[in-house]
Amino acid sequence: MGTGVLWQGAQGTDVVPRAQEVVSRLKSMGKKVFLVTNNSTVTQDDCYRKCNTLGFSVERESIICAPFVLAQYLKEINFQKKVYVVGAAAIAQEMQDAGIRCIGIGPERIGGSIYAALAEGKLGLDPEVGAVAVGFDREFSYDKLVRAVTYLANPECLFLATNTDEKYIVTGTPLHLPAAGILVKAIEKASSRQAQVMGKPSPTILYMLQARYGVQPQKTLVIGDTLASDIMFGNECGMWSVLVLTGVASLQDARNLSLANDPLLQKQIPLFYLESVADILTLLDSAANNNVNEQH
Amino acid sequence: MGTGVLWQGAQGTDVVPRAQEVVSRLKSMGKKVFLVTNNSTVTQDDCYRKCNTLGFSVERESIICAPFVLAQYLKEINFQKKVYVVGAAAIAQEMQDAGIRCIGIGPERIGGSIYAALAEGKLGLDPEVGAVAVGFDREFSYDKLVRAVTYLANPECLFLATNTDEKYIVTGTPLHLPAAGILVKAIEKASSRQAQVMGKPSPTILYMLQARYGVQPQKTLVIGDTLASDIMFGNECGMWSVLVLTGVASLQDARNLSLANDPLLQKQIPLFYLESVADILTLLDSAANNNVNEQH
Repeated sequence: MGTGVLWQGAQGTDVVPRAQEVVSRLKSMGKKVFLVTNNSTVTQDDCYRKCNTLGFSVERESIICAPFVLAQYLKEINFQKKVYVVGAAAIAQEMQDAGIRCIGIGPERIGGSIYAALAEGKLGLDPEVGAVAVGFDREFSYDKLVRAVTYLANPECLFLATNTDEKYIVTGTPLHLPAAGILVKAIEKASSRQAQVMGKPSPTILYMLQARYGVQPQKTLVIGDTLASDIMFGNECGMWSVLVLTGVASLQDARNLSLANDPLLQKQIPLFYLESVADILTLLDSAANNNVNEQH
Repeated sequence: MGTGVLWQGAQGTDVVPRAQEVVSRLKSMGKKVFLVTNNSTVTQDDCYRKCNTLGFSVERESIICAPFVLAQYLKEINFQKKVYVVGAAAIAQEMQDAGIRCIGIGPERIGGSIYAALAEGKLGLDPEVGAVAVGFDREFSYDKLVRAVTYLANPECLFLATNTDEKYIVTGTPLHLPAAGILVKAIEKASSRQAQVMGKPSPTILYMLQARYGVQPQKTLVIGDTLASDIMFGNECGMWSVLVLTGVASLQDARNLSLANDPLLQKQIPLFYLESVADILTLLDSAANNNVNEQH
């Protein structure tokens, strides 16, 4: 749960009515609640502060941001080299917290003829780099593309991506911004390699939740607003997928998937849908009443 | 014919032995000879000067560069608006010569929050823009990507590309540079639109040669060194395709295509191959001798 599920709006600060209550109620019932976001420009701390400000009662540990997953993954495989990051400062922050060294944040420029720089080995590459990690990067440039592709020419260099979301909706307009997935695709195409993806719908996050918190997919609801990431993540990982209509996808979008007759798109069809996450309260009340009735 | 066919090497100034003689001989026989290049960073004038310097006897009119084709296409459809160019100065030069207005050459930067800039309509867009044209752009950046995608959100805005070559070989190294096709793919993916391609293997160049010079595809040899552009162009346009081994593709590359069992790749299999364009002289000599013998 996160943007579009718990909050929405142009600044992402309009809390979905009763959303805090949903989180508290689930926790009071002994359920584990995790906030999982593909946003590659926020750290766990950023999300934690936002949750506090908006009145959500969640622990820092139950917040899972793509940059955090990326850094934890590298830590778990005992990665000792440097990471060349095409991405935002949040990635560097999570890397630093995990004890992983990284370079590449901010604008980068290769001087002079780029053909000559590559031919003469003067691209300014760091020989300690052993991984390229890609997220959303406002400073993305041809020069960064060249450096990434050149690191990736070494088959031992790892290739990781925070997420593959292609569009970032601009609230209140029919427009969107190109998201991390566009940059990932460009680097994949230019390097003839495929990135290992950390965020939804990749199962990497589920593996982490299973290892750390004993999450059992068959007993887990994934509540999301995005078909290609949230719902696909739930469906593909054997969890129960629930679409809420307070964010990116509409019910019509979900219906169009059924009509598409494409196996990949059909993996994005939600098992359930709710107008809003608040409807969970109604369902829980109703379930509680039914239990009372049955006991009579 | 061009790089890899007539000349080669790190600076592209090593003339293939006897290549000038091939051009002169074909012309002396009354054949039309065209030099067609997908390179989006050179103008017809640049190519003409290079040909002169390297001793090739060709007219300016027989040189066909992707930026020239792009500009001529816009002129032919009587395009009156401005073109937003993601590309090099050569495109602007050809546009200017064709009387087409364009913007976007060089570095571009959108100040402040790009989300806010898009939401508030402060992206610095020019309302006169009616086409986006993409070639190789050393100054390619996220900000240019956003502007291109936002122009293309208007379905009436044309979307053109000089070429779709994805790799630019760096001579003397196993490395390559991402080429125009990577930038085109990124903008296509981010805009959910498909560019109309000017260069090889698109038939646009053939249409131009047919209209202007009466070129008949069934009587035309396409001599090239690149399977996905030159040879595919020849095969798909009903011309005779000849691979020369002095450039990008090896005979093994062509053989691998036959094994691939992929219809798209099989369209790239050359009809003939020659070690070098110079072998045409031997073939012509041999044909001439046979004719003499038959007359006796």
